[in-house]
Amino acid sequence: MKSRERSAWGWGWADRFPAAEERRALGELVTALLGTPGEAPREPCEAAALIVSPSRLAVPAPLAPFTSDGDDLRARRTHGRAYPDLIHGFRGDFDRAPDLVARPRDEGEIERALAFCEEAGVACIPYGGGTSVAGGVATDVGGRYAGVLSLDLGALDRVREVDPVSRAARIQAGATGPRLEAQLAPHNLSLRHYPQSFEFSTLGGWIATRAGGHYATLYTHIDDLVESVRMVTPRGLWQSRRLPASGAGPSPDRLALGSEGIFGVITEAWVRVVERPRHRARASVSFDEWEAAVDAVRALAQSGLHPTNCRLLDRTEALLHRVSAEGAHVLLLAFESADHPLQPWMARALEIAAAHKGRCPRGPQHSESVSRGDAAAADEKWRAAFFDGPYLQTALVSLGVLADTFETACTWDRFPALHAGVRAATEEALRTTGGAGVVSCRFSHVYPDGPAPYYTFLGRTRFGRELEDWSRVKQAASDAILALGGTITHHHAVGRTHRSHYERERPAPFAAALAAAKRALDPAWVMNPNVLLPVEA
Amino acid sequence: MKSRERSAWGWGWADRFPAAEERRALGELVTALLGTPGEAPREPCEAAALIVSPSRLAVPAPLAPFTSDGDDLRARRTHGRAYPDLIHGFRGDFDRAPDLVARPRDEGEIERALAFCEEAGVACIPYGGGTSVAGGVATDVGGRYAGVLSLDLGALDRVREVDPVSRAARIQAGATGPRLEAQLAPHNLSLRHYPQSFEFSTLGGWIATRAGGHYATLYTHIDDLVESVRMVTPRGLWQSRRLPASGAGPSPDRLALGSEGIFGVITEAWVRVVERPRHRARASVSFDEWEAAVDAVRALAQSGLHPTNCRLLDRTEALLHRVSAEGAHVLLLAFESADHPLQPWMARALEIAAAHKGRCPRGPQHSESVSRGDAAAADEKWRAAFFDGPYLQTALVSLGVLADTFETACTWDRFPALHAGVRAATEEALRTTGGAGVVSCRFSHVYPDGPAPYYTFLGRTRFGRELEDWSRVKQAASDAILALGGTITHHHAVGRTHRSHYERERPAPFAAALAAAKRALDPAWVMNPNVLLPVEA
Repeated sequence: MKSRERSAWGWGWADRFPAAEERRALGELVTALLGTPGEAPREPCEAAALIVSPSRLAVPAPLAPFTSDGDDLRARRTHGRAYPDLIHGFRGDFDRAPDLVARPRDEGEIERALAFCEEAGVACIPYGGGTSVAGGVATDVGGRYAGVLSLDLGALDRVREVDPVSRAARIQAGATGPRLEAQLAPHNLSLRHYPQSFEFSTLGGWIATRAGGHYATLYTHIDDLVESVRMVTPRGLWQSRRLPASGAGPSPDRLALGSEGIFGVITEAWVRVVERPRHRARASVSFDEWEAAVDAVRALAQSGLHPTNCRLLDRTEALLHRVSAEGAHVLLLAFESADHPLQPWMARALEIAAAHKGRCPRGPQHSESVSRGDAAAADEKWRAAFFDGPYLQTALVSLGVLADTFETACTWDRFPALHAGVRAATEEALRTTGGAGVVSCRFSHVYPDGPAPYYTFLGRTRFGRELEDWSRVKQAASDAILALGGTITHHHAVGRTHRSHYERERPAPFAAALAAAKRALDPAWVMNPNVLLPVEA
Repeated sequence: MKSRERSAWGWGWADRFPAAEERRALGELVTALLGTPGEAPREPCEAAALIVSPSRLAVPAPLAPFTSDGDDLRARRTHGRAYPDLIHGFRGDFDRAPDLVARPRDEGEIERALAFCEEAGVACIPYGGGTSVAGGVATDVGGRYAGVLSLDLGALDRVREVDPVSRAARIQAGATGPRLEAQLAPHNLSLRHYPQSFEFSTLGGWIATRAGGHYATLYTHIDDLVESVRMVTPRGLWQSRRLPASGAGPSPDRLALGSEGIFGVITEAWVRVVERPRHRARASVSFDEWEAAVDAVRALAQSGLHPTNCRLLDRTEALLHRVSAEGAHVLLLAFESADHPLQPWMARALEIAAAHKGRCPRGPQHSESVSRGDAAAADEKWRAAFFDGPYLQTALVSLGVLADTFETACTWDRFPALHAGVRAATEEALRTTGGAGVVSCRFSHVYPDGPAPYYTFLGRTRFGRELEDWSRVKQAASDAILALGGTITHHHAVGRTHRSHYERERPAPFAAALAAAKRALDPAWVMNPNVLLPVEA
């Protein structure tokens, strides 16, 4: 894998961008789905034709050993991987490249980089996997800065310490999912945190953005897996104590979690790990009626059974993710344990599902093994499709298709109205934009008091008009979410994209507290400006 | 219960203070335990002889409808219920009574009280149940204030709204445990949060101090039960959105949780409630060796079985709490569910215990009923002794016995050294103080990565010397906890008592962030001064 190259503009590995013929077939599928023909496919901008803004900064001497102003490096840290980022990248537009890319090898170098930024009035954007879909690494920081430095944590990717007794590990912030899991595997341990970006995103990024893992109940957000955080701020080192729990004042970790780089750079964390699961139980349950399926999931979420997976796909999602073509809504249900067989858990869960008219004709599949070889078919198809999703979006960009996802969470009592309203607003925006649209929904996570619905939309756009069309749909969806009692993001973070809606969601005194804390730790206001808070004069 | 009176100085109901004869018998028990004779019992100061400092403030006109400067009201809001508070109260020392007691009936009156305090430079101490054991309601706020106003939330004690679909309820901050449970019961719902102070402490107090409930795993801290918080700050209303989860920036609720009144007054919260449990399984497991018992509990905490109760008592605790007189360490194990019978859960838990030489001769006790009538004997004895504990401490004060508890949490890898070191330091301090001492330990809560050990100590002191003796023991225990990797409090809060140790525990940049947030929301620095943060000039 070492020589495998990341795409300069699209999701993930460059070699995963499909050949023209494959994309043509994909286009035909979309046409069948939307009922209207689309644009002729185009090719992404050639590497040679990229427009990369020249650097406005010379590499400062103290940073020289780990900092570059090279065009390719800078271009590759210009955009995240939201739909607008893909569009910019597809067009070869790297006009807002950061001026410098620093790749520190230790905390001392991070401190030096922060000191330089503070002194020179340069915006510092911490960069993990670069997979933000909310403008978290976007360089539009406003006019007050002398330039932008992208602080790439990629060189800090080690598991530094493992405590097998407490089941915890000290891991550097730049470690990607596969990197950290590979280092934990010899200890038979796993962090077991699988966001969709798992392959490329990093522990530091997960903590900074309160990432959501793949598992549906209990420990879903990285928040619950963090035992302590280490963060370099412009005003000193933030190191919390390793503790299983504490009641000593507001939790310092919970202020670092979700801080998106505005206070400083997370350098490492102690995280809670688990023994790798050995017992697995899986079932795929079909429902004819959406409301009955929702009620079943609610009953499961409130049952105290804590399924590992409890993911409801509406019929369109089930089709798109290839887990069912029968037109049913599908609930993927799973339990996992390193400790005990799961028959009683699954049996009771299926009873609950059946009480809500859920059908499980194949019955549950139980297995006992550390590998996943014998997993239930629907679940494996889901898993493959789950990780393929972002690649698909990248391919659709070349077909002039408007394709994106957004997500929220709300209490159960509000869900029916939120679901209807968000779908209607999104469909309406897609109609006025491209004349046709499909909106599908799944529950990415469920809690006793509410679900986290995750929406995918597909519609038409025209080359050159994608950004405006996307903005209109995104705005309509976001407005509806807020108006109907949801959160602007359950696990995609705020970044620059969601900031205006985030400002409407959070308590005003909390915003004042956050800004005051920011001024105390980053008086020059150079850390990831415009994320969470507007730049202060 | 309506006419039943709270003790003016001791724990709980006045009628629970034992008669002289009963206390004499208790004194003999302590003598047997410590091996040394104690002082002759004394009686608490007569009500007529109390020394109550005169009020330095006239009741301001805008606050007159809900504010008093009466001596009895003020005396009763002078102290919390820590050991030093009991000593002051026993002696009749109410020399630091607040100058005014406000008992607002709505948020408008709270706003008026805060405006008065800000304008007049009066310290405002939010007051819930007054059960703080960490000086959370103590009036020693330093010399810069014109006076102290105790803001009693007791009139705000209603469950305002119940959402049976999402299983959540909107409850006012002044509701005590019994008050809110009584209002939830008709809905067959329960908050199921039972701190030892349950009978008297309030939801607002629990949130402000990150209270720990009675249950041993999963949702132990009130933090996890809070869906949204409403707080009146000197700079406006802090109202978070009702959400099952969110990834939108650092959690506002988590900054309110544990804020101990320094930002404002919590007025109500949406909390997660549950259906009242119907299925119960209980077992009492005995261990000869402490280390084996600890290993068993660790295995259980890491098993994913999530027992409702997993409380390990060392042999002294088991004796004191009357659950075993055989000299064994006792693990009280329980599962509860509103959804399913618990045989498989308990069976596996007992397998794990047995693998660590745990004996359960009576076997598990299963029951199915909403009432608790048929509960296992050891568990019920524990429960009674648990809620009796604070009454016992109050009685011991009249016998010249040094009796208190403290608690912490640490990771499993550090527990053996912490346990040995904390016990040794505490025993040594008790020896130099009174010549004899007993230190016992139980796990109040357990997590996959560590336990929350809870220590009880008993020793000798002399009337008139209690405060100095207590301080020496408390200091020794707190120093050992911090030196050995614990937290200064798992669920007793910081207050004024733990502040100096808390300052050594928290990350320095976090302290700066907290102070900056405080300045932004409470620029006059009148809200509960000296708690968490020192008063700023």
